[in-house]
Order: sequence, then C-alpha cells, then structure tokens
Amino acid sequence: MTAPVIAVVGGGQLARMMVPAAAELGVHLRVLVEDVDSSAAQVLSDAPVGAASDPQALRELIAGTSPSGSTAVLGSVPASVLTFEHEHVPNDLLMEFVNQGTAVHPGPHALVQAQDKIVMRERLTELGVPCPRWAALPASSPQDGAAALDAFIAEESARAGHAVQVVVKTSRGGYDGKGVRLVSAAAEASDWFSAVADGGPALLVEEKVPFARELAVVVARRPSGQTATYQVVESIQVDGVCSEVIAPAPDLDPDVATQAQDIATRIAQGLDVTGVLAVEMFDVDGQVLVNELAMRPHNSGHWTIDGAITSQFEQHLRAVLDLPLGDVTPKAAWTVMTNLLGSQLADPTSVLPEALSDPRARVNLYGKGVRPGRKLGHVNVSGSDLADVRRRAQNAVATLRGEGTVSA
Amino acid sequence: MTAPVIAVVGGGQLARMMVPAAAELGVHLRVLVEDVDSSAAQVLSDAPVGAASDPQALRELIAGTSPSGSTAVLGSVPASVLTFEHEHVPNDLLMEFVNQGTAVHPGPHALVQAQDKIVMRERLTELGVPCPRWAALPASSPQDGAAALDAFIAEESARAGHAVQVVVKTSRGGYDGKGVRLVSAAAEASDWFSAVADGGPALLVEEKVPFARELAVVVARRPSGQTATYQVVESIQVDGVCSEVIAPAPDLDPDVATQAQDIATRIAQGLDVTGVLAVEMFDVDGQVLVNELAMRPHNSGHWTIDGAITSQFEQHLRAVLDLPLGDVTPKAAWTVMTNLLGSQLADPTSVLPEALSDPRARVNLYGKGVRPGRKLGHVNVSGSDLADVRRRAQNAVATLRGEGTVSA
Repeated sequence: MTAPVIAVVGGGQLARMMVPAAAELGVHLRVLVEDVDSSAAQVLSDAPVGAASDPQALRELIAGTSPSGSTAVLGSVPASVLTFEHEHVPNDLLMEFVNQGTAVHPGPHALVQAQDKIVMRERLTELGVPCPRWAALPASSPQDGAAALDAFIAEESARAGHAVQVVVKTSRGGYDGKGVRLVSAAAEASDWFSAVADGGPALLVEEKVPFARELAVVVARRPSGQTATYQVVESIQVDGVCSEVIAPAPDLDPDVATQAQDIATRIAQGLDVTGVLAVEMFDVDGQVLVNELAMRPHNSGHWTIDGAITSQFEQHLRAVLDLPLGDVTPKAAWTVMTNLLGSQLADPTSVLPEALSDPRARVNLYGKGVRPGRKLGHVNVSGSDLADVRRRAQNAVATLRGEGTVSA
Repeated sequence: MTAPVIAVVGGGQLARMMVPAAAELGVHLRVLVEDVDSSAAQVLSDAPVGAASDPQALRELIAGTSPSGSTAVLGSVPASVLTFEHEHVPNDLLMEFVNQGTAVHPGPHALVQAQDKIVMRERLTELGVPCPRWAALPASSPQDGAAALDAFIAEESARAGHAVQVVVKTSRGGYDGKGVRLVSAAAEASDWFSAVADGGPALLVEEKVPFARELAVVVARRPSGQTATYQVVESIQVDGVCSEVIAPAPDLDPDVATQAQDIATRIAQGLDVTGVLAVEMFDVDGQVLVNELAMRPHNSGHWTIDGAITSQFEQHLRAVLDLPLGDVTPKAAWTVMTNLLGSQLADPTSVLPEALSDPRARVNLYGKGVRPGRKLGHVNVSGSDLADVRRRAQNAVATLRGEGTVSA
C-alpha cells in the first residue's frame, strides 16, 4: 500500500473525529497522543505517545519511527504531511520541519496568527478585516501596561458616554474562556501585568462588543488555493465555552451571511491558511466583527459530521493533502449541535439506552473521563423544524449529563 | 471508562466500516482480524490476530486477553457481546459461548440460517415467506443427487413448456456468486456431487427465477424485539457480484415496497435475528421472492453511510448492544452506491486527486491489496436527479479503476 500518511499532533476529540474520515478515504492517520488512553488513541491503530513540545517525538511522528507507535501497519512510512488538532506546537520547530522539506499544514507562518492574538489582530487590521477596537498593552513594565489599559478604558467610556468594561486577553495560551477577563479598571488585571513582568504572555485589550449574538464560519483551503466555505452558524456560549451551534444561523440577513463568509474566505487567503480555519465573529447590528481564529477543525463545525455532505474533519484531511475539497452543502434545513459539558454520571455511556431513545439523536462521545465542564461529547440533530431539532438535541444531552429530559 | 466492548469476528471492510460508528457512540470495538494488515486492523486500536475457527482465539477475543491485542485501552475488559462480519464461525463453538453466558448476536440458532441454505429454505417455507421453488438434493450418493436434480429440471421444463436451466447451490460456503451454478442437466454438476460424496456441503436446487431485477432490504432487530427497516433498494449484480445499489429502487410499486419490507421484518422476527439482516430478493412481476440472507451489515446497505440518518454499521452496533435503533430515514431523494471491483492501478489511493474532483463523490476505500474483481471500496453519491447521481458514482469508480471517466 502506498496510501498517504497524515501525521497529527494532539490526541483529543478533534483527532478522534478525524479517524472516520481517514478510514473512509483510505488514508493513514498517525496521531501523537498525550497518553495511551487519550481520546484518539482509544480508537486509532497508530497513536504514538509524546508531547507536542518534544522535538524528538515530532521528528519520530513524521518519520514513522516512534518506538511506541504501531509498526505493523504503515508505522514506518514517513508522513506526507504534518497537521494539528491544537495550536500549541513550538513554531521554530515547525519552521525546522518546513526547511527540511516536510509539508506542514497549516504552515508556521499562518499558525502563529492562531497562536498569538496580537499578531492576529495586527494582521487582520492590515487586511482590512473588521475587528473590535483593540490595542496591544506594553510589556515594558506593569505600570506601563496598566496606564495603557486605563487610557483604553477611558477612551471607550468617553465613546459610550458612561463607564464601560473592556476585555483584556493574554496573547497566547487562552482557550474556552481562559485567558480572557472583563475589567472596568486596570487594577483588576494587576496579577496579569505581574505575570507579564515574570515572562508570561503579552496582553491586549479589546472593546466589549455589544453583540446580538456570536456567529462562526468554517472554511477550508488547499495549498494550491481552492477554498470551500460552510454556511454561517450561530454559536451560543455559556461562560466562554461553546454550548450549542445552530446551522444555519437563524434569521440571518443574506447580505450579512455573505459578508461573514467572504471575511472568512479572505482571512484564509490573506493569512495563507491551509487546512480548516474557523472564524468566530460577533453579529452587531447587521455587521460582523472577527473575534477569534482557530486553524483546525473546530467545535462550531461539529454539526457538519451529520449535517453536511462533507464533514469538517474529512475536509481538513483533504485540504492538508491538497486533495479536491468536498461539497459543503447542508443535508437538512437545520442541524443543531449541543455540547455535552461535564456530567453527573461517572460514564455517560451508561445512559446510552436512554440518550439514544430519540432515534434522530446523533450521539458522539469522546471517551474522556468526566470532569466538571469538560467537553465529553456532543449531540447533533437535523430536521426541518428548528424548535423540535433544538429540543431533541438538548434532551439527549440532558440525559447524558444525568439530568433526565428537559421539558418540551 | 466502563464503555461497552463489542467483539467482532472478521477484519474485512465490514468490520472496518463499524469503526466510525463505534468511535462516535463511544463504545469500544475489538476485532479478530485475519492478519496484522487486514482492512479493519489498519484503522483500529484493538485488533488481535486469529482465525474465526480457532476456539482459543475466540475465547481470548471475548475475554480481552488476546496476547496480540492492545492491552492499553480496554484491551483486558471482557466483551459485552460477540458479533460477526461474516458467517463462517463454527456454530457449536458459538453455542458453547451462549451456554457460558456470553451474549452472541446474531445467535447461533439464527446464524445457521445464513450459513446453510437448505436450513434457510426449510425455515422460510415454514414461515410462509415467498421463495423460488426449491429442493434439497439427496446426499446419499452422487447417483441419487443427480437423479433428483434431473427430476427437478424435468418438472421445471414441463412447467415452462420448454427445456430450462435451474440453479444448483452448495448449501454452505458460497458468497458473491461462488457456490452457485446454472445447469440444464445433472451431468453439468457431476463434480459437485462427487464433492458431496467426499464430505463437501450438501446441494440444493432452485428454479431459475425470471426476475425483472434484484431488490434488497436491510432490517435491524434488537434482542428485545424492536425492528427498523430501511427503504427497499435495487441491487445490480454483474457475474454474481453486487456492482451498484440504487436507493430507493426506482419505480417500485409502493405495495411491492411494503411487501418487501414486511417480508424482511417478518424474517428477522421469525428467525430471531439480532443485529442487521440483509434480505436479497427477486422482483418478479410485482411479486418478490427471497433469494439470500446475510446476518450482518451487507453490501446492499453501504448507501446508508452517506444516505440515511443512521448507517447500517451504527445500526448493527446498536442492535447487538440492545440499544434503541436509529432513524432509517433517507437524507436525500436518491443515493447510489457503486462498488470498486478490482483496479488497473496498484493502489487506488494514487488517484484520489482525480476521484475526488467531483465534490459530491463520497469515496470509501478499504485499504485492501488489488486483485481482479476484489471489492476494494465503493463510492456513494446522493442527490435529487437519479441519472446525474449514477453517472457521478460511476465516474468516480471508473477513475479509481484506472479507466478515466465514462461518458455522460
């Protein structure tokens, strides 16, 4: 067999959900997992254990010489491409691989913009992409940083005509609401300024956007340039974590939908993203502002597994292999994805009989141990009646959380 | 984790296509594979090597103690259920497991009817299921067998008013056109009668049904009794091997469709089948006759991977775990499945760039080495225009066969 080998860094649920797509396409997946029982390792034949920051582990992942990997099946075949299920890979190491001739998608020059929010905001501003008002906070001293933050707050308050809060973010390392804080005075971020002085990630500040809702667009782009953009979805967050995704975003002005898709496509092209890019946006009075980027399959695209002709996971594999992209057409009028965030049960699979009692509930469990708020799985439901579809997805998730069903 | 463990006998493409369904449901699959690079072993974490006829290998598969299996992840957890991707498992061994308290689905009392065509015909006749006229041929001596066959031919010829051919079958071991022979005189089967005398499988004869086309129905049934029946499909055979499946069967009289689905459901109930049952039928002037049974996911159900809310593979896993069955509603007006049977290419993945150039072609490759006529994969295409859908699926398969595209 001479099937292409895709090396993936990270063994969580995103890598796990690439497994079906790889099996169907007949391409081989080799995933660097954190632990022998990581989410992806539970289902995948070729899953060497190692850290994403370990140069030797990455070299062996690419070469197919991982001592702990399966050597029986394509285990010793070098990878055609290196890709990721998260952004936490040292960029200088990726540059080394690129310089040695390894295909890395997304490339480190693109990935840095998903790793560092200051770099991302600078680049998006250059591209003319609508963003919240923002400023990088000087890292020269905690005093300088605090002064700049207070000045930004004063400016925003003057603009609003009353005292407002702003959003302070760490430039690196944040996810799912971590590394983000609402403040009304610099004193409320003094610990973060101290962390910067101790060598922590630089900070930036953004206006608190008075958004009506959050939208997201997933776009895939091949190295040779082809792009494919999924429909715009609404993403409902609870405590900074995605709770529910409605595809398509209900009652969205077609012009705004086009605007959102164009922005996502423009970012993929402008940043030379290869693979799947998720663009999270704010919907503010018929205008969209870009919030965050993720250069990998993303929670806002899980609906595509059941709701689109091509899933975002297959699309990512196609894109990084520079294969033609699949059809992004939805298969149903509505698809709702509801996240399973934590559970009162020791193991949600114990209530599969109840969770599957709705024959239309598409349950996807990640094999992860239960912890409060942890993403343990999701449920997709498709159909023609949005209210019915939402209720079915929420009911199945409530069951998996050990809460019984919610009322109709 | 306390996720259920499903033990599967056989590591071909049918087991491979169970992998995505198991990963999504969060249940663990342990597959007894023929070889370290069997189709399923290429993608699955827990795939011990052994023969389906080896009692020790089966015992270890169930117990989770296979020395060659993955022990890192649920490798040592006993299976909740034993199931199959083929029927070639010694029935007395299965009875032993059942008697020891192991859940075996389908059970040996049902499975024997997919293993032995004489047993199957006797039982279907008892159930009043419409079948071709048939007779078991005596195994007492080649002369007795030949005499009975000639008598059957004479009867069929008298009925037709002219000399006709009949279908001789081996009761066991046949598949994909093997073990089936058209004859017009017993002398043409003399080698088979000799084989019976040497201890080979008994023979049966059936009328050659003047069918308009072949239909198939996939039905799933849980141990607790629930059934779910997919729409009736047309199955197009070339040289006894399934070449193409059209879902639903075009221009099928709704009464005939109901009749076909009722028969399939009745067989599942009457034979106490648990798991997925495929019933292959002849469509003869608005009446259906049952041809063959398979008690496992079947080629005639591959369209469900992309064309139905629940795939037959997920449905099989749900059924054998006695979980509620999923929705069998089609996702599109038409889905066509075209088999990739052999290829001029050393490896069909080498033409993935061309095969995927139609964004709607859902390519599924099994990772198997190329041999003439071998089932190497399939392509599904869904849509609203049947002619277009068929052409797209055929084009993608022609590309994977190394033949370029067929004309529009």
